[in-house]
Amino acid sequence: MTTKTITVVRDVLATNKQAAAAIRAELRARGILCVNLLSSPGSGKTTLLEALADRFRGRRRMAVIEGDIETERDAERIRAKGVEAWQITTGGACHLEAKMIGKVLGNVPEAIDFLFIENVGNLVCPASYDLGEDLRLVLLSSPEGDDKPAKYPQAFFSADALVLTKSDLLPYLPFDPRRAAAEALAIKPTLKVFTISALCGDGLDALATYLVEALERLRSGGA
Amino acid sequence: MTTKTITVVRDVLATNKQAAAAIRAELRARGILCVNLLSSPGSGKTTLLEALADRFRGRRRMAVIEGDIETERDAERIRAKGVEAWQITTGGACHLEAKMIGKVLGNVPEAIDFLFIENVGNLVCPASYDLGEDLRLVLLSSPEGDDKPAKYPQAFFSADALVLTKSDLLPYLPFDPRRAAAEALAIKPTLKVFTISALCGDGLDALATYLVEALERLRSGGA
Repeated sequence: MTTKTITVVRDVLATNKQAAAAIRAELRARGILCVNLLSSPGSGKTTLLEALADRFRGRRRMAVIEGDIETERDAERIRAKGVEAWQITTGGACHLEAKMIGKVLGNVPEAIDFLFIENVGNLVCPASYDLGEDLRLVLLSSPEGDDKPAKYPQAFFSADALVLTKSDLLPYLPFDPRRAAAEALAIKPTLKVFTISALCGDGLDALATYLVEALERLRSGGA
Repeated sequence: MTTKTITVVRDVLATNKQAAAAIRAELRARGILCVNLLSSPGSGKTTLLEALADRFRGRRRMAVIEGDIETERDAERIRAKGVEAWQITTGGACHLEAKMIGKVLGNVPEAIDFLFIENVGNLVCPASYDLGEDLRLVLLSSPEGDDKPAKYPQAFFSADALVLTKSDLLPYLPFDPRRAAAEALAIKPTLKVFTISALCGDGLDALATYLVEALERLRSGGA
């Protein structure tokens, strides 16, 4: 039983890795930076994407793939910002897989800069699935508590950047951003750390600059 | 590939169901009410258990099984309240399974009233695994947003009660407890709904009464 399960999981991850590599190659060839957003439910992934849509409007073009177990709600919120969005509903599955992204890829316009993928809200399972992204952001919101990186290490280990969200709530919470960052950096010393409030706009300049610089690196062949 | 995966998942769930049934039978025979707590990371499961430890002290005896991917932190917090606690670290797995509970069960004292199981923080996968509990609580904290029940339906469908936590943050958030409750009730009309702040104590009387009444029903053979 155990052996069979492990073999199947290995097959699933190997198949996923192949599909992800094909997506990464295609998007790099098209000069599009693909960014995978991971976090618990309600950490502010959609709100961050809404804020980036406002910030990039008229300067950079973005599109969004939304992953949810059920509902089209998040894609509708993104479309209301004038940004193209496709909703993938997994119907129970706890994470997105590369083959799901592959099916949507044909719809993505040629002339965009960023393709954001908002994963299913889950700080565990999505960490194991490469979606062909060039950048992975893990979000941790201040109400979740600063003790989470050590408890959910894989999500933080697999990410390129940590985005501490909802900084506007810090006055009302026992959350210490320095402790959260230190825990995450102990797991992955190369993590870039950003503290933001997507509602108030705090910290968004630095995050947007980071994304644009990654895009420029990709286009100059240094991704 | 797909067929093999589905068969294995079915086997895993069937094996889990058998183990859960044995746990349920043993705990009912011992007159212990087993309560499984499900939620996203950081929704306040451990803080609620700390508050219940304070409330039940000297009146009802409880013990706690803590599930986490890594660290002993939550068990240490519970022990600091003078309550026996056992930490299960899943080492990567996204949910607890009945066989993990089975291994700890021999340590649980005879003369307790409540055995609480705090699942891995994950609003998706734990919903599929019966742990032998008689009551399942799903927690949703106000910062997560009132739109979550429809997006993660299985957790709400499988629960007996919905506990809306962190009501002390409501003045600072666009969270509508009535909308959250209405969404959850549309999925599971028999859900009991509680709104609490484990920090301030609001709503804890009603929740504690609900737990004690469930215990009394179990002991009178009407669980």
